[in-house]
Order: sequence, then structure tokens, then C-alpha cells
Amino acid sequence: MKTMKQLLHEKALQPYLWQARYGVEKESQRITANGQLAKTDHPKVLGNRAYHPYIQTDFAETQLELVTPVANSPQELMRWLAAIHDVAYRSLPKEEMMWPLSMPPVLPLKDEEIVIAKLDTFEDVLYRRYLAKAYGKRKQMVSGIHFNFEFGAEFLQNLFAIQEQYPDFTDFKTAVYLKVTRNYLRYRWFLTYLFGATPTSNENYFVADIAPKEPVRSIRNSQFGYTNHDDVQVSYESLGQYLADIARMVEVGKLSEEKEFYAPVRLRGGQKVADLAKTGIRYIELRNIDLNPFAPFGIDEKQIEFLHAFMLYMLYLPETEAADDWVAKGDAINNFVALERPDRVTDFVEEGMDLVAGLKELVKNLKLPLAEDFFDFAQQAFEDPNQTLAARLYAVTKEDMTTWAKTVAKENQAQAWQKPYQLAGFTKMELSTQILMFDAIQKGVQVTVLDEEDQFLQLRFAGRTEYVKNANMTSKDSYVVPLMMANKTVTKKVLANAGFRVPQGSEFADMETAVLAYPKFANSGFVVKPKSTNYGLGISIFKHGASLADFKEALAIAFAEDSAVLVEEFMAGTEYRFFVLDGSVKAILLRVPANVVGDGRHTIAELVAAKNEDPLRGSHHRAPLELIQLGEIEKLMLKEQGYATTSVPAEGVIVYLRENSNVSTGGDSIDVTDEFSQDYKEVAAQAVTALGAKISGIDLIIPDKLQPATSPNAYGIIEANFNPAMHMHVYPFSGKSRRLTMEVLKFLYPEIN
Amino acid sequence: MKTMKQLLHEKALQPYLWQARYGVEKESQRITANGQLAKTDHPKVLGNRAYHPYIQTDFAETQLELVTPVANSPQELMRWLAAIHDVAYRSLPKEEMMWPLSMPPVLPLKDEEIVIAKLDTFEDVLYRRYLAKAYGKRKQMVSGIHFNFEFGAEFLQNLFAIQEQYPDFTDFKTAVYLKVTRNYLRYRWFLTYLFGATPTSNENYFVADIAPKEPVRSIRNSQFGYTNHDDVQVSYESLGQYLADIARMVEVGKLSEEKEFYAPVRLRGGQKVADLAKTGIRYIELRNIDLNPFAPFGIDEKQIEFLHAFMLYMLYLPETEAADDWVAKGDAINNFVALERPDRVTDFVEEGMDLVAGLKELVKNLKLPLAEDFFDFAQQAFEDPNQTLAARLYAVTKEDMTTWAKTVAKENQAQAWQKPYQLAGFTKMELSTQILMFDAIQKGVQVTVLDEEDQFLQLRFAGRTEYVKNANMTSKDSYVVPLMMANKTVTKKVLANAGFRVPQGSEFADMETAVLAYPKFANSGFVVKPKSTNYGLGISIFKHGASLADFKEALAIAFAEDSAVLVEEFMAGTEYRFFVLDGSVKAILLRVPANVVGDGRHTIAELVAAKNEDPLRGSHHRAPLELIQLGEIEKLMLKEQGYATTSVPAEGVIVYLRENSNVSTGGDSIDVTDEFSQDYKEVAAQAVTALGAKISGIDLIIPDKLQPATSPNAYGIIEANFNPAMHMHVYPFSGKSRRLTMEVLKFLYPEIN
Repeated sequence: MKTMKQLLHEKALQPYLWQARYGVEKESQRITANGQLAKTDHPKVLGNRAYHPYIQTDFAETQLELVTPVANSPQELMRWLAAIHDVAYRSLPKEEMMWPLSMPPVLPLKDEEIVIAKLDTFEDVLYRRYLAKAYGKRKQMVSGIHFNFEFGAEFLQNLFAIQEQYPDFTDFKTAVYLKVTRNYLRYRWFLTYLFGATPTSNENYFVADIAPKEPVRSIRNSQFGYTNHDDVQVSYESLGQYLADIARMVEVGKLSEEKEFYAPVRLRGGQKVADLAKTGIRYIELRNIDLNPFAPFGIDEKQIEFLHAFMLYMLYLPETEAADDWVAKGDAINNFVALERPDRVTDFVEEGMDLVAGLKELVKNLKLPLAEDFFDFAQQAFEDPNQTLAARLYAVTKEDMTTWAKTVAKENQAQAWQKPYQLAGFTKMELSTQILMFDAIQKGVQVTVLDEEDQFLQLRFAGRTEYVKNANMTSKDSYVVPLMMANKTVTKKVLANAGFRVPQGSEFADMETAVLAYPKFANSGFVVKPKSTNYGLGISIFKHGASLADFKEALAIAFAEDSAVLVEEFMAGTEYRFFVLDGSVKAILLRVPANVVGDGRHTIAELVAAKNEDPLRGSHHRAPLELIQLGEIEKLMLKEQGYATTSVPAEGVIVYLRENSNVSTGGDSIDVTDEFSQDYKEVAAQAVTALGAKISGIDLIIPDKLQPATSPNAYGIIEANFNPAMHMHVYPFSGKSRRLTMEVLKFLYPEIN
Repeated sequence: MKTMKQLLHEKALQPYLWQARYGVEKESQRITANGQLAKTDHPKVLGNRAYHPYIQTDFAETQLELVTPVANSPQELMRWLAAIHDVAYRSLPKEEMMWPLSMPPVLPLKDEEIVIAKLDTFEDVLYRRYLAKAYGKRKQMVSGIHFNFEFGAEFLQNLFAIQEQYPDFTDFKTAVYLKVTRNYLRYRWFLTYLFGATPTSNENYFVADIAPKEPVRSIRNSQFGYTNHDDVQVSYESLGQYLADIARMVEVGKLSEEKEFYAPVRLRGGQKVADLAKTGIRYIELRNIDLNPFAPFGIDEKQIEFLHAFMLYMLYLPETEAADDWVAKGDAINNFVALERPDRVTDFVEEGMDLVAGLKELVKNLKLPLAEDFFDFAQQAFEDPNQTLAARLYAVTKEDMTTWAKTVAKENQAQAWQKPYQLAGFTKMELSTQILMFDAIQKGVQVTVLDEEDQFLQLRFAGRTEYVKNANMTSKDSYVVPLMMANKTVTKKVLANAGFRVPQGSEFADMETAVLAYPKFANSGFVVKPKSTNYGLGISIFKHGASLADFKEALAIAFAEDSAVLVEEFMAGTEYRFFVLDGSVKAILLRVPANVVGDGRHTIAELVAAKNEDPLRGSHHRAPLELIQLGEIEKLMLKEQGYATTSVPAEGVIVYLRENSNVSTGGDSIDVTDEFSQDYKEVAAQAVTALGAKISGIDLIIPDKLQPATSPNAYGIIEANFNPAMHMHVYPFSGKSRRLTMEVLKFLYPEIN
């Protein structure tokens, strides 16, 4: 029979070796600007912890627990960790931060000032009260990383197919994970050495208990950490034995319930421990990772990859002793190493070097996609203990832990606020989708990116699945509505039939017929445009009528773009974008062409540069506003007004750099929602309703918004847009922010509060 | 003050002169193959006459009344008239036809065998019983054309703007129509002369009454026609006088109700005559047009244009006598001319020639868009009375009216059945839209073509408006569903999550990563394709695995088409299209590549030619099947099988001319709906439901449809299509027709029966 090592070398397995699924739960204490435990409650804006899949609290009300969804690659895992951090930071009160260390900040002297998480379910609160009593509140305030690891499904299936020992796949999987678990427990000291990061404790941590006398590698992973009492002993020999032992501990009262069994590894199957008997082991949860204070999210991609390689190695390595002895030896070594001084060479340096060499060999033999120098850091850390996380952390915190941690916390917080419209990890997606995802994560709506390039999301909340594309293309709108809006003639007919004012006009399929209609338009303002407008191409505007020659030329230009041409009445006035959702106007925006305002001192070029400093300005539609350019078009526009880029406009003079008002060419977006009376809002909302649409951006030309909407020619509807841009309303150049993405979410899920 | 003639010459009016709205109501008696009145009831398939906007019955159960919607041009009017005729013909029992003459076919001798229309409303039946009693059933059996005419809105507005007499627009309009009406009544003999087409009556028409002794121009427009009794006299001097007179007639019992006033012109405003006082005259209804038996639909486009010109002329011409005298003179002349022998020069030839000359001058002066020789036919008809409709009809029917009328009826009927999948008038639209429009017209669903090129319809029924694009893009499907289906990766993820079998595979964004996955696919069948498939471009199929070199080449080909490439498991089996609507399978289609079956006698070229004779085959997707080509591809395919176009395949041998099974390249569509057990239908229906779609064509690969769908690998879902073709199911090459268009209609309007 082949050994596992031999099996892993089989060629058939090669494509699947680096397949796995990952998940992280990361705890952090909320702190104030001066590094003290926050006194505020868990933010209400984060919705209900009873179901929140991303942002929970652990033991204490101040102890955030950030939970990633299951990820299929280390990169994907890190994206989610970054995104959830972004949401958490920006959901906290502006002055609150996250304590970056596993060991808590200075704790209040009085136990009652450590507030247990205010959960809805009384059982959950009761359990925490029990823990506080059984282990002490202070130990519960330690934070860490829980890392969930599952081998790839195809990896396991193919491995199962080539082995001969187990006829049943579930039994086989359980055996795989049990082997990995035992070896992990045996060698976990290796991680404690490399990644242990709790060398000392802060004030008021060890108040009653004995503390380590010297700095160590990991208080949290030592006997001083938060572990079960010594008399809790569970065998990993078999799943049956493991479950029987835990059941016995609960029976004799050594554990209050199954979940109180806190091992460095938890075997996971169904929801509860007892489910394992049916499901077998489906994945394992590593619980012994200290927060890495040098990584903004407490763990980094390299650590994730390292852990994956280590898990494969634990499967690969033979076990050379009986299960219980093997684990007991591992426990002892781990406690020993955890309590070594961080700046000292470990007593187990030889086994450590062997493990590094073994990992290098594994990667080479199995052709894992890791760089050749991937494990150099580990080798160096064994050669020089000062390179371990624990030693590095001790070096920077031995004088004053709080000051250093506060500085790191501030940096992390500042990073999250630098571009508040972005969602870290997903910055390549469209801005509206990023903002919608932010809101979804904040409210605990489960998000799956079905297709990143296509902006296709799956949402799940309140037991219902919804699909969203480009942030507002949803199941709430019907198939035929966007098709209608894409056809300007149909849109106009439907709106006109419903009694709305639209530009009068005609559609022409040939030049000859169109020219015959000239007398109809000759003497008043009109617009000639291709029926299917392509980014404004082929449009001619005559504000005060035109000669027959000009009319013909405009027709020729339009017919060059499309086989059908519209000639429409020109409507004078200001164009406003009304964003309508479910029958009511949620935002009104005025778009102003790219411009600068003179101050009598700076040149236009300087004014543009200064205006472009706004963090809201960026490029390629990945910022709410675009950078103002100084290209050919802008320079020509300046010239026509008698300016050059070196001109110094007088104070208060507005200089326009563009004729068109598009935000995409540097225009300003100005929220004017509150400047409109209800009657215009009703016109816009009713027009969208007449089109049968639920979500639409409808453009109205309004000569004077102070006139009642019922007065003659008070407005004209230019067009209705499906998938209207939302980011420009959420982050306008000036005026109030309108969180339309949240409105869309609440439209999909009225249960959100 | 300017005269109307002067006003009409104003330049400002020129663009609007030829604007008008038209509508036609056309009656026809249903007859059997031997030319007798049909004994059947009005076809049930036509839905309920209580609301049917297009196909009604007039006096008798056999008397179809076809009603066009309001049209904006003579062309549009004729399209609708043609379309409604198509629907009516194909809704009748196969042997029934429409009697093409105004004078009825041979009537039963017994009055009780002339069956009054079996309408739902008792009032309507009662009124018909009264008419039968007051005028006799036989007179009610005469059919004709009612022509509704309204001047264009812009024409009237602009005319109103340049006149000075009327300060109120409604009063002005009423005056316009009253003038036109009085002149029309004065000169209508001109139309009786040109278009009168009831020279003689058939047997059993004049049973009790005195009949004309000689053939005439128009029995229907003479004193022998169906008119009010002589003592019903109404003045057209003013609208007030007109209404007062009618009211008085009703009061004294000379009319049973207002609508019994049967004048050659009816003034129309609101629903009832009395509404006119409020609305003013909005349009007029000309009721004196005999069916033109030489025009397949009883009237032709030239007559419509003629009537429009005549209406303008009636507005243009001055009135030279007091209103009542003027009208009375017109009545007298009309009766005189109507009763002249059709082959005789009329006594009023001089006035007739003057009217022709006047019309010619009108067209010339006002630059109306009519050909220079437009009125030549009228001039010739006055020079040679044998060219009038009445004379021509008398010539062909004097021996035997029934035989001639039967022949014409048969020709008209055959025309409607020639290409039964088309809808006359709308043959440029997509076939599925034509069929859907047919079904809508049949069931009395109001159809408006909002955009012909875009296949955009508005439907109205049961008080609800629906919009339909491309025949099955409706409000029933949500916006996000077609977006999901357009993305094959998303579709597969959603289907796989819901537990359906889809081809396993991976998406790759670059060549390098894709090549690394080679071992996963090497040894079993797989397909390499661009993520967004473009008509099958860039797809490589390896049914039994491939070498690394072939894999790389296939990737290169696919990446040339798209930036993302899918590599998917190849699924062996036959592909079937399941058409799913609202959660159940309505049709299953097998598509077979273009082929011919040998008979041992004919060459392949001859067999192709014979197969192409099928009237279902056409080109450019305007027929249910495409013509089989014998181009390069087909010849190569033949060559590979050892054939040439001159080969004579043995009897029963199937020769394929194409590898692909698309109907668009001459493939056969075979309905196999009844060959499938319920379980496969459930898989297809549930998969579409899992995608959230209501209407979809979903393609399943099935190796053996006799195996249960629950057996392993019984099926694989290849793709789901929004806007799936329907015409291939409605008119398959073989197997049962599935009227999916009607299913879509009934899905939109469950009220349809």
C-alpha cells in the first residue's frame, strides 16, 4: 500500500494540490483615540449581530469579530478581509480604531467595566457570563485569528481515487483531516515560534493570576493563555474517540457544553460538534494564530500561503508515535517554545530547521506554485530569533505598548478612510458596485461576486436571493423596460401618451422625407440626432432655427451615424437628473461643465491643479469625479473665451473648460434635491412609473425651477436612463450625499434597518 | 377676411396639408364554398365580440365587420386592413370565405333563416330586432365601407392660427367639418359615380319591395338602399340645429334612438351623438362607400388617397347656396346618378369633369404628394362610363353574380392562406412578432406598433397595457435575468448552485494559467470556447481529450475572440431545445442539420430543389425554415462523404449538407414534445425557474431520452436563452405545431379565452 507521501507525488494529483478553501475570523478590540477600550456600544449602523455574516462581536461588546466568507484562493481571502475591514472602520465612530494586538489594551480595573457583548439572544449572553466566571473576563479579552482550512474538493476526490485503504469517501476525508490535525498539534510550536506575537501583556491584564516573569514568544499560546483547564483531555486517535471524550467532559461537568472545548484545532463538520458523527470532518479551524500587528488586517497573504503549504506538509509527514503521545508531545513542546524569550534561539532550532527544509522539499517535489525563496524568512527566523514577530513586537512595545499600538491603529484607520468611496479588495470594479457592496457588507447582506468584470453580484438576506448587475440592474425592473428606454422613439411615445411633455419631433428613415419636413422646423429651435444616440455623436443643435442648408448638413451628419434620424423641438432650460426609485425621487443632480473659479492670483493651470487635488477626483470612472484635463478641447474652449492656461481670472469669475456637462469630462456634480418643490419630483416619479420602471435616472429640462411644474412648458423630459450612475449622487462635488446604493439594497430587502 | 381657399394656399400650412388620420370599418357576409350564406356561428376562436376592436359582427351573425385602428397614413391603414383580413380568413372554418360584394349573396327565402348577430348584450340584440322590423332584414344584409376621416392635428392648429373668424378652436373645428360635410353631401354623387358598385341585386333581395327595373350605379346609395324614411330630415346648417333636429326626431318617434340616424356622413365627437354638443366635431364618418369587389380588401390605397384629396377639396370649395338647399340638391343629384344605368354617360358629366379639373388644380396648387396622372382614372371614367366600378361589375356579374363573386372570394381566401405564417401588412417584421400580432388581433388584444424595426409592440387588453419586444421580451421577466443568461459563467454558477448538471469547467483570463490546467482536461472530452460566444466563433471541441499542443492551439483560437476563455467538459448526446414558459415546458424541439433523403432516382441537387419547394422555406428569417443552400460549405460537406451534387443517393439514405444543426442554415426543426417523459420537462422547467426566468429556451444535452432524468449524467444543461425563437416551434418542419405566441399572450393576459 502506498504511503500518503507517495500518493501526493502521483502525477494525477498535481493539478489539484494547490486547491483549497479558506476562511478567517479575526477579533479586534475597539479603542478610542487615546488607546483605551471604547465605551460605546457596537455600532447600530452595522445591523443586527443575530445574523450578520461579516461583522460580529466576540466575548465583549468592544470585541469586533470580522468574518470572511469562504474563499477559493489566498488572494480572494485577502480581498474580503480588506473589504470587511474597510466597512468596519468606516462604520465605527470617526474617533474609534481597532487595537492591532492580540493582547488587549489597558483594561479597566473593575471587572464590571469590561462589558459582555449585548447580544439579542439571552442564551448567548448567559454563556459569556459563564465564561467570565469560569476563566475570568480578562482572558476573554485576548484576540486572535481563527483560520478555517478545507482541502479542495477535486484534490480530495482524486486523492481518494488513487488510495486503497478507505472504501468510503467520508471516512477517507475524516482520516485525512485527523492525520493533519495530529501532526499539526505535534508541530504547531513551529507556528508559535514564527508567528507568535504576544510577548508581553499590558497593565491590568494579569491582576489576580501569576504572570510570566520575562517576555515570551506567545502568552496566548502558552499555559498563560486562554485554554481549557488541565483536566480537559480529548483524544485525536479517531473521530469516535474524540467525540466520546468531549461528550464525557460535558457529562461530568468539566465543560459547560461542547463548544467550550477550546483546542488549537477544531474539527468541523455541521453546525455543532455532535454533527461530526454524521458529516465526518469537512474542514478544520486553526485557532492558535496571534494577530500579526505588522499586517494591517492581522494576517497577510504570505501567512495564508504558508499555512496552506504547512497543512499539505502535515498530511505528507508520517506520524511516528501513537496518537495521544504524539499530541501530548506537541503540546509540551509548544508550551515550552511559547514561553521562551522571544530574542533567544529556541531549544528546538534543529527540528525547526528540519521542518523548513522539509517544506522546501515539499514545494519542490510537488511543484507547488510558491517562489523558490518563499521559506527563506523562516530559515532566517530560526537563525536569528530577532526576526520573529514576537521579538520584533517586543522590541517596539517594551517601552510603551499603548503608544506603539495607537500609532499602528491610526495608520490602519487612516488607510481605510483615505478614499472613502472605494471598497478595498474590489477597487477594480465599478464605483457604484463597490459602494453597493460596502453597504451590503455593512448591513450583513451576503455578497457573492459571480462575475467581477461583469459587475454581477449575488445577494442573500432574509432568506431570499437577489441578483444585481452594475449596482442597480435588478429583479425589480422588468425585462422590457430597459429595452423601451433604449429606444428613444418608444420612450417618447409612451411618455407622450401618458400626458408628459416631451420634445415634439419626427423620425425619418431617409434624407428626402426629412428634407421635406424642413418648413415644420425652420423657424424655432430644434435638434437633429441619430435615433440611437452614441455618446452624443452626430447631434446638431439649432437654438433658434436654421437655414435649409444647415438643416441638410445636420441631417447628413446624423444619417452618417444611424439609419434613422430624429428631428426634435429644442427645449431651452437647465438639465437636471432625477434619480427615481420605486415611485419616488431620491436625488436630483445638476451637472456643471468642468470649470475653475478665479481668485485674482492663480493661473487657470494652477486653479485646475488645485481643484484636481480633491481626493474625490480620479480617472477611468473609479472615482466619483474625474480629473479636469487641459487638453486640446479645453484649450480651444479657453481660447474662445479669450483665455490661455496662463491667464489669471479675477476673483469669483467662473471659467468653463468644457461645453458639455458630463462628469466624465471633469464636470461638477451638484446635489440640488432639496432645492426642488414636490411637484417636479412628482412629475419625474410619475413619468418613470408611466414607463413601468422602478429604478431610473430621468433627465428633465427645466427653464425655471421656481415656476410650478404645472405651468405651461415648465419642463420637458429629455430621456430616461436605465442603470443610471449612482456614485455621482453618493459623492457629489457639492451638496448633500444621497446614499442611493443603500436605497437600492433596502428596495431589494425592506427587512434591512 | 381671407377665404378658406386663400388660407389653404398659405405657405405656413404646406407641411401639414397631407396630414390626416384614417379608419375603416368594412362589412362582409360569410359564405360557404358554394356561395351561400354560412350557417355557422361567428368563430369562437375570435374571442368575444363584446370588446373585440378588430373583428365584429354587424346586423347578422354572418356579417363580419372588420375594423381598423386609427392610422396616420393611407399605407398604414392598408397594412391594418390587410392584416385584419388575414386574421379573419384564417380564423374562419377552412371552407368559409367572404362575399366580396356590397349586395348580399342569395338570401334564404324565410326571414327567420337570416340570423341576427348573437351578441352578449340583450340591448344590442333588441336594437337589431327593431331594425329588422322597421326596415326589413334583407336591407340590413347589405355591406359597405365606413370611412373615418380626421384632419391632422397640426394642420388644424396651424389653419386655426392663420384664420380670424373663430376665436375658439373647438368652434373652428366644428365649422371646418360642417363645411366639409355640406359640400360632401352636395357632391357625393361624384363618388357614387366613380365608386358605386351595387348595380344589381341577387335573388331573394327585393322580395316584397319594388326593385329597380334596370341595372344602376349603386342600389345601396339610391332610394332603394338602406336609408332612413323620407320624413327623417336633419339640417346641417349648424351643429346646434343638427343636434336639435335629431333629438326632435327621436322625441316624435321617427327614430328609435339617435344612432338610428343613418346619413351618408355621420358627425363624430364622443361616444354618442349627444356628446357632440360638448366635444364639437372631432372627425367625420363617410358611410356611402360600396365595397370595391376588385380590391381584395373592399377598398384600396388609391381610393383612400382620393378620399383625402376629396375631403380637402370639400373644405377648399365655396358653398354657393343656403345649407339646407345645398344638401337637398346634393341628395337629389346623388339619387339620380345612383339610379342611372352604369354603362350610360351621366347627366352630370359636366360637373363631374369640373370636379376632376378642380381636384387636379388643388393638388397642383397645394403641392399635394400625388402623382400628376393620379386623377386620370376619374377623367377616363367620365369619358367612358364602362370604366366605372359599377359598369365593370355589372359586366362580369350580369350573367351569374354568384359564380363570379365565388371565384373572387376564393382568390382572396387563397391569398390569405398562401403563407399562413405571415401577417399581411407586417411581413417586414420578425416572424415571431408577426405570429404574435396575428394571435393578438385574433383575440381582440389591441396592438400598436411602437417601433417596427425594433419589433416593439404595445398591447392593450382587459384594461391593462403591456409592452412586448421581439415577441417574448416582456414585463414578466425581470431585468437581471437576461443579463444573467448572457453571461455563461454566471448562468452555470447559478444552475450548479441549484443542483443542476452543467458542464464542469474553468474560466481563464490568460494563456499561461489556462495551459497549467491542461492535466485536468487532457484525458476526457472537452470544449474550449470564448466566454462570450459570438455565433460559434473560436470554439474547439475535443470529444476524446487532446494533446497539449492541440490544447494550446485551441486556447489561442479562443483568446483571439475574447479576453476570457472557458474550458469545459464535453457532454456527449443529442441537443434539445426546451421552451419554458411560466414554469412549464411548452415545446421541445430537435434541430437536424440541413439534409435530403435519397429516393434512388433524383440527384442531391434535385432533392434539395424539391425540399426547397416547401412553402415553409424562405430566406432572411422571414420564413419558419430557411432554403437549403448548395454553396461552398455544403459542397465540401458532400465531398467529405464521397458525394457530389449530381450523386443519386439510394432510397432512404439521409445525406447531410451541413455539420451544424441551425435552422438558419437549412436545418430541419422537429417537434418532439410528446416524446419526452415528464421528468425531463421538470428538469428544464425547474432550471429556468432557478434562473428566475419566466420565458426561456433552455438547451439540454441528453444521451438517451428513454433513461430517467434522475439517472447519473442523464442530461447536461448547455445554455439558457432569453428571447428564444418561437416561429420554429409554431411551424416546425415536422411534428406538431406549438402555438407559443398564443401562450405568451395568455401569459400576459390570462383573461384571454
